[in-house]
Amino acid sequence: MARVPASPTSPAPTASAAALKKMLARREGLMGPNAPLFYQQPLVIARGKGVWLHDAAGRRYLDAYNNVPHVGHCHPAVVKAVQRQMSRLNTHTRYLDAAVLDYHERLLDKFPRRLGRVVLTCTGSEANDLALRIARQQTGHQGVIVTDWTYHGNTTAVAEISSAYNPAPTPPHVRLVRAPQADSGAGADAGAAFVADVRQAIADLRERGFGVAALLIDTIFSTDGLHAVPKGCVKQAVALVREAGGLFIADEVQPGFGRLGSCWWGFENHGVVPDLVTLGKSMGNGFPLAGVVGTRELIAGFRQEVMYFNTFGASHAACAAGSAVLDVIDNEDLLANAQAVGEQLLVAMRGLRDAHTCIGDIRGQGLFLGVEIVQDRQSHAPDADAAARIVERMKDAGVLVSKIGRHDHVLKIRPPMPFGSRHARLLVQALDRALQMPR
Amino acid sequence: MARVPASPTSPAPTASAAALKKMLARREGLMGPNAPLFYQQPLVIARGKGVWLHDAAGRRYLDAYNNVPHVGHCHPAVVKAVQRQMSRLNTHTRYLDAAVLDYHERLLDKFPRRLGRVVLTCTGSEANDLALRIARQQTGHQGVIVTDWTYHGNTTAVAEISSAYNPAPTPPHVRLVRAPQADSGAGADAGAAFVADVRQAIADLRERGFGVAALLIDTIFSTDGLHAVPKGCVKQAVALVREAGGLFIADEVQPGFGRLGSCWWGFENHGVVPDLVTLGKSMGNGFPLAGVVGTRELIAGFRQEVMYFNTFGASHAACAAGSAVLDVIDNEDLLANAQAVGEQLLVAMRGLRDAHTCIGDIRGQGLFLGVEIVQDRQSHAPDADAAARIVERMKDAGVLVSKIGRHDHVLKIRPPMPFGSRHARLLVQALDRALQMPR
Repeated sequence: MARVPASPTSPAPTASAAALKKMLARREGLMGPNAPLFYQQPLVIARGKGVWLHDAAGRRYLDAYNNVPHVGHCHPAVVKAVQRQMSRLNTHTRYLDAAVLDYHERLLDKFPRRLGRVVLTCTGSEANDLALRIARQQTGHQGVIVTDWTYHGNTTAVAEISSAYNPAPTPPHVRLVRAPQADSGAGADAGAAFVADVRQAIADLRERGFGVAALLIDTIFSTDGLHAVPKGCVKQAVALVREAGGLFIADEVQPGFGRLGSCWWGFENHGVVPDLVTLGKSMGNGFPLAGVVGTRELIAGFRQEVMYFNTFGASHAACAAGSAVLDVIDNEDLLANAQAVGEQLLVAMRGLRDAHTCIGDIRGQGLFLGVEIVQDRQSHAPDADAAARIVERMKDAGVLVSKIGRHDHVLKIRPPMPFGSRHARLLVQALDRALQMPR
Repeated sequence: MARVPASPTSPAPTASAAALKKMLARREGLMGPNAPLFYQQPLVIARGKGVWLHDAAGRRYLDAYNNVPHVGHCHPAVVKAVQRQMSRLNTHTRYLDAAVLDYHERLLDKFPRRLGRVVLTCTGSEANDLALRIARQQTGHQGVIVTDWTYHGNTTAVAEISSAYNPAPTPPHVRLVRAPQADSGAGADAGAAFVADVRQAIADLRERGFGVAALLIDTIFSTDGLHAVPKGCVKQAVALVREAGGLFIADEVQPGFGRLGSCWWGFENHGVVPDLVTLGKSMGNGFPLAGVVGTRELIAGFRQEVMYFNTFGASHAACAAGSAVLDVIDNEDLLANAQAVGEQLLVAMRGLRDAHTCIGDIRGQGLFLGVEIVQDRQSHAPDADAAARIVERMKDAGVLVSKIGRHDHVLKIRPPMPFGSRHARLLVQALDRALQMPR
């Protein structure tokens, strides 16, 4: 059984303060300042297995945060598949290989028939950048509509549409809209407000002369704060965008590959099939693998005009990793697990909400949950400081979570997919304790 | 010993024409049309080892083209390092890890002291995109000067500066210059012409209101045609760019990591230390790994303003791959090999030039050589058809090479680094035979 210390206020330091300081200075010397880190006292992690990470001192942490190790840290089936393929052959798509095509086919089988082609890349940033290239080239328009506190990646073009953590002014060809939010306490017309905002965004982009190339959204609006989304509003917004000659790009980098339990892809929640879908993170369980899935016409139209080649995209090893991930998801029934454990977590956390008035709302689906931390339930005022303290306390107690949202006050719970019932109990127990502690 | 068929005109077909046709149709169905392929009858490759690739029928090909498997296809040291690390831990840089920092340090040790920091990414495209972001953010300018037949990658921002194979018009903030070329037959003032062109480009970009953020060049001008570069002209051009407040970005994705034999980096040929250097392809021997090396000030300045995080960049497995590559380069003395075998190839190919009037020029350095194919040495007119035929014939004879240059008439020879003397002899022999064949 897992070790969650009874007294999380006196954490066992895992690296001496001096050693940690030295390592941080060395890191800054090599990488530069401000390279993002987790925790006030960052963790020195030494190994991982399943839903567990172990630090250099041998202390273990329940990982309720990392989504890249989708089927679990160091899953032997993925390690073996990559090792076998790397020992045999690892080149690119300018030669032919049946196994590489098999992976393309297996992946497309997870999508509605309308989405019949895929272009593999290495990262979600590359996927979103490519989706923007396709959308702009195929529509002839430049404007993009995105939500106003989101993150889609790090290339020049994708940073422009990623307003969260980005101090640069939004360029005129990007129009921000507020994510739909039917959260506890929100008005009844949250869906209508989103649709109206998109309608105005289309008008603005046309007036500015850019037209609308795409509405691009994370289908679970995670960085925005993992909001509850009113039924039908995304579908209505997409209809307006299509009417204006634009495309619907679904960013599935976080919600995809079954994380939401009841569906493979977040767009299924919204009752509308996208024109382009972007994938990343979880796809290769840590082996860099990502891609754009799209309609036959869009991919063909783009490829007929543009020479697109991605050296490491769809390499033999990447496809072997991706294929092993699909195997494990099926073999270990990870969607059903995400649904069952997600439900268990929702119920348990609603119980916590009854006991702790600083919980404003519990949101999310499957193994992607958000716990909103507020000053009190009357004002519903975000409490970022409390959220930060809870994240640190849970880490001290051996459980890893993070934060999202415009006000940085929503606990982000997004564990590897083999997160089971007993892990859920440990997580809830640690959260309960962290919430009980005095300020 | 290698098997190079004596009668390369009757190649052994390795897949039936019908099977190949079916596979190509399947590929197009999944990936879309025009996904780049090599050869009129593409190869179905099944395995690789060192400098050899083997097709599905068991026929082997001497690989004189692929640079991604820098230390050789499926090098056991790299396979083992990745397998070991993937079995143990493979996360990101938001946790601390000494081995990850060790790799950063080992990499920086290969650079002049002025270049003291590195930001790792997954692909060369991401590296060039990030270098542009840094240059624009740090200089406050938008204009970029690049050569007029080059390829730096596939993101939106990088495609703009990659005119080769890109039908889109060059945007006004990008100014193209002709690569310096002191090739056989070129005038004596090739260097001065390049410097004058850059001077004019700076003036143009200023006049257009963009200023100069950077001069970005592939330091061996490979896609341009692997031209001979007059001593000093790049240095002079860089001085002008710096005077205008711009940076010098050296794209080392192809020439880097010792390919040129006498140096680790192509910029060393030009006697000027860049402000930013971009790396890719060869860096992880096929494991997606790339990055930007830069001055302490530029990386710090960028990071202080911009939150940059790359999920898979600098992952434990990526750094393990990169570290193994550095080990093998040193342990197998691959720079010395590149220099010695490169010299041997130059001498042998100059011999071929005496025998074949369709060879206009032999260029390059180390294990990166170009053989220019012309209609005749008097007119020096490029002969793309002949170059294409030679590439196909050599493939039929079991040797893989490709083509570069604005007129697609320069044979591109860029083998994995363990390419030895006997491989060089086989290559020269196959080239000699391919040149002897009637049109």
